[in-house]
Amino acid sequence: MTTNNQYWDESSEAISRSDLEALQLDRLKLTLQHASLSHFYKKKFSEEGVDISSIKSVRDIRKLPFTTKQDLRDEYPYGFLCVPKERLVRLHVSSGTTGQATAIFYTRADLETWADLLARCMYMAGARPGDTFQNLTGYGLFTGGLGFHYGAERLGMLTIPAGAGNSKRQIQLMKDFSTNVIHIIPSYALLLMPIMSEMGIDPRRDLKLRIACVGAEPYSEEVRRRIEDFYGIRVYNSYGLSEMNGPGVAFECPHQSGMHIWEDAYLVEVIHPKTLEPVPDGEYGELVLTTLKREGMPVIRYRTKDLTRIIPGECECGRVHKRLDRMQGRSDDMFILKGVNIFPVQVEQVLMNIPEVGNNYVIVLRQENNIDNMIVRVEVNDKIFVEDMRQLQRIQKKITHDLKGELLVTPQVELVEPNSLPRAEGKAVRLIDERKF
Amino acid sequence: MTTNNQYWDESSEAISRSDLEALQLDRLKLTLQHASLSHFYKKKFSEEGVDISSIKSVRDIRKLPFTTKQDLRDEYPYGFLCVPKERLVRLHVSSGTTGQATAIFYTRADLETWADLLARCMYMAGARPGDTFQNLTGYGLFTGGLGFHYGAERLGMLTIPAGAGNSKRQIQLMKDFSTNVIHIIPSYALLLMPIMSEMGIDPRRDLKLRIACVGAEPYSEEVRRRIEDFYGIRVYNSYGLSEMNGPGVAFECPHQSGMHIWEDAYLVEVIHPKTLEPVPDGEYGELVLTTLKREGMPVIRYRTKDLTRIIPGECECGRVHKRLDRMQGRSDDMFILKGVNIFPVQVEQVLMNIPEVGNNYVIVLRQENNIDNMIVRVEVNDKIFVEDMRQLQRIQKKITHDLKGELLVTPQVELVEPNSLPRAEGKAVRLIDERKF
Repeated sequence: MTTNNQYWDESSEAISRSDLEALQLDRLKLTLQHASLSHFYKKKFSEEGVDISSIKSVRDIRKLPFTTKQDLRDEYPYGFLCVPKERLVRLHVSSGTTGQATAIFYTRADLETWADLLARCMYMAGARPGDTFQNLTGYGLFTGGLGFHYGAERLGMLTIPAGAGNSKRQIQLMKDFSTNVIHIIPSYALLLMPIMSEMGIDPRRDLKLRIACVGAEPYSEEVRRRIEDFYGIRVYNSYGLSEMNGPGVAFECPHQSGMHIWEDAYLVEVIHPKTLEPVPDGEYGELVLTTLKREGMPVIRYRTKDLTRIIPGECECGRVHKRLDRMQGRSDDMFILKGVNIFPVQVEQVLMNIPEVGNNYVIVLRQENNIDNMIVRVEVNDKIFVEDMRQLQRIQKKITHDLKGELLVTPQVELVEPNSLPRAEGKAVRLIDERKF
Repeated sequence: MTTNNQYWDESSEAISRSDLEALQLDRLKLTLQHASLSHFYKKKFSEEGVDISSIKSVRDIRKLPFTTKQDLRDEYPYGFLCVPKERLVRLHVSSGTTGQATAIFYTRADLETWADLLARCMYMAGARPGDTFQNLTGYGLFTGGLGFHYGAERLGMLTIPAGAGNSKRQIQLMKDFSTNVIHIIPSYALLLMPIMSEMGIDPRRDLKLRIACVGAEPYSEEVRRRIEDFYGIRVYNSYGLSEMNGPGVAFECPHQSGMHIWEDAYLVEVIHPKTLEPVPDGEYGELVLTTLKREGMPVIRYRTKDLTRIIPGECECGRVHKRLDRMQGRSDDMFILKGVNIFPVQVEQVLMNIPEVGNNYVIVLRQENNIDNMIVRVEVNDKIFVEDMRQLQRIQKKITHDLKGELLVTPQVELVEPNSLPRAEGKAVRLIDERKF
């Protein structure tokens, strides 16, 4: 592992496309052999007549069956395990908010691989040994917290395991220890802004923040720009999911033009969610991932339900690892209103492009007289004089007009005072669906 | 490092007293040289005319000045630091509930030492690679969470970073993954009991629990016996404090007759809190500790405020590392009622020896007509028929009598129904002092 100016792991990052594909093929074959030791894949491969020796190129992955969240649920707890239990050192469990929990296992080598991938991500964004890293997300079973924590220590940053919440202390720690790099969810980055102002802290003047690693929630380019402007930092998008270890699957380089997915560790496909056929680079579809470097629990062709696309062309940074575009949301997040498919993040994009709009909003779906309505409740920003009725009406009209242009349905827009909507220190609640089906 | 049947680290654990003292002297001298690089000790040693070359035996430590919590506060953030900031990889910060925060720094070597000490503790208690370890304490800045987490992974247990709270899921995880070893605070171990019963889970029949590592709160021998009886496990007492890394300072061996303090890593003294002179082994006093193996931030003669004693004599396990008795509480916890010094844990000892008493209680101190009163509110256990007035009066009388015998003051005892007192998922609130001074 070299730590020259540009790469954390030069042999993996500066690899050529042909060497990468050769590596992927080797690892894919090993992964398949290894996976067939698990209860689930042994059965699945036998049922579907999978012949590992017929895999001659990475494209042959299309011959293999998909794996779904439901498979992980059905096989809870040990159906995906490929090593003796004695070799495991970590277990994460999904919250199971939408049903039966799922279990993710890690051997010692898996924890090393995972920490190394996260160190690679942050190093690529410009984090360096000697920087101070503050982790503002929850720890425990959530893979985001311990994932970034191990990556930051691996990289050699002074790691502050601040955890979620306790906003004033967070800000105090940033100041006292000259924090340079933070890991934060976007809604919490927005929530901290008025608290900093209250404390008389101007982040550009009083703090040494340089880099924010941001993930775990879908959010818009417009919110990124607001966070960058307020804190005077660069915000880098992060992508991961516990089924693929956690964060560290894909991350932005300094060109901020999509998230490089580490193809030496994950094989990437984008498919049409209905036909299940691959879509060409540049077109949106469902992300499907295969682990290439996982010992405890390989997962083959996992349907992530996340909707994105491969950004065509080469990145200026020179890395051949393909770039994922910002997640459009999960296919689960999408809602249908008057027959139109809408993602909450589309609403956010429109709102955050309007300068008079503040940092918080909520979408309420409600059924009245058997008609579905969308109410968009929006905070105005704190420079708006809330008694100027005429100005408010102008803003309301503009929001309604812009949303209709984007969504093709007319929402009912309600303006509220700055910092008046309820806020969560965890993931923001952006959608309340009160409809009965 | 060997992992034979008895020792995690044979060379440190099976050492003779004379070899241990030679090792301590070497490490003490190194520690003093190293400490004098920090802003605080450089100044302190110079002011007090400390001559490191005059240290000829570990007993000479008495020539050195003490370090207090207030020193740590005054020197926040970097006054104790002995290495360039670039070498640090972890920072913990005390909550600062009683004033200015304090900062504790760790180099990579410090994290290794710390994890290794915790692995040694748990291995000594009988934890083995391949066991499942569930960490039921909070993570983040609290050193208990990440401390045990790193130790468990180091030992090679399947580590579940469950975190605090979410009781039903905790119990489900214990069941689904056959948890053998837990880290838990005593009040939470009590809190889980009725929830397990509600869920129809008999821990002796349905779970595979073997070992509980328990610390972070003062608690009584009687509560230990209740926890052991209910879960069918062995409970091992753990001692540590963030100023000395965190947990891993002292821990019980299978003989459960005091906590072996790892004297290869910490130099132990017990002093009279007023005269500051050493007290003989067997007598209670304030624990004073010196780090012997810390790189980022050595601390010399730290006054812990914890009241305990060295248990005289040799332990049957053969380890020469001295044994600390159960903490009587912190000198800060002690309250004075009608001129008598009382520790909340003394009240607990009396209560938990009475079979009719349930698992929860609270002490309220109140001033009425200029007289201080102690109200002890106690849950009866769930086998008591709460409508039987005569039985209740008998229990009340017994509790009053026993408390008066122990404390020499007469409390007002109030009996309440099982599980009716407020419970915290964090540290239990055992004392409410409503008096005005």
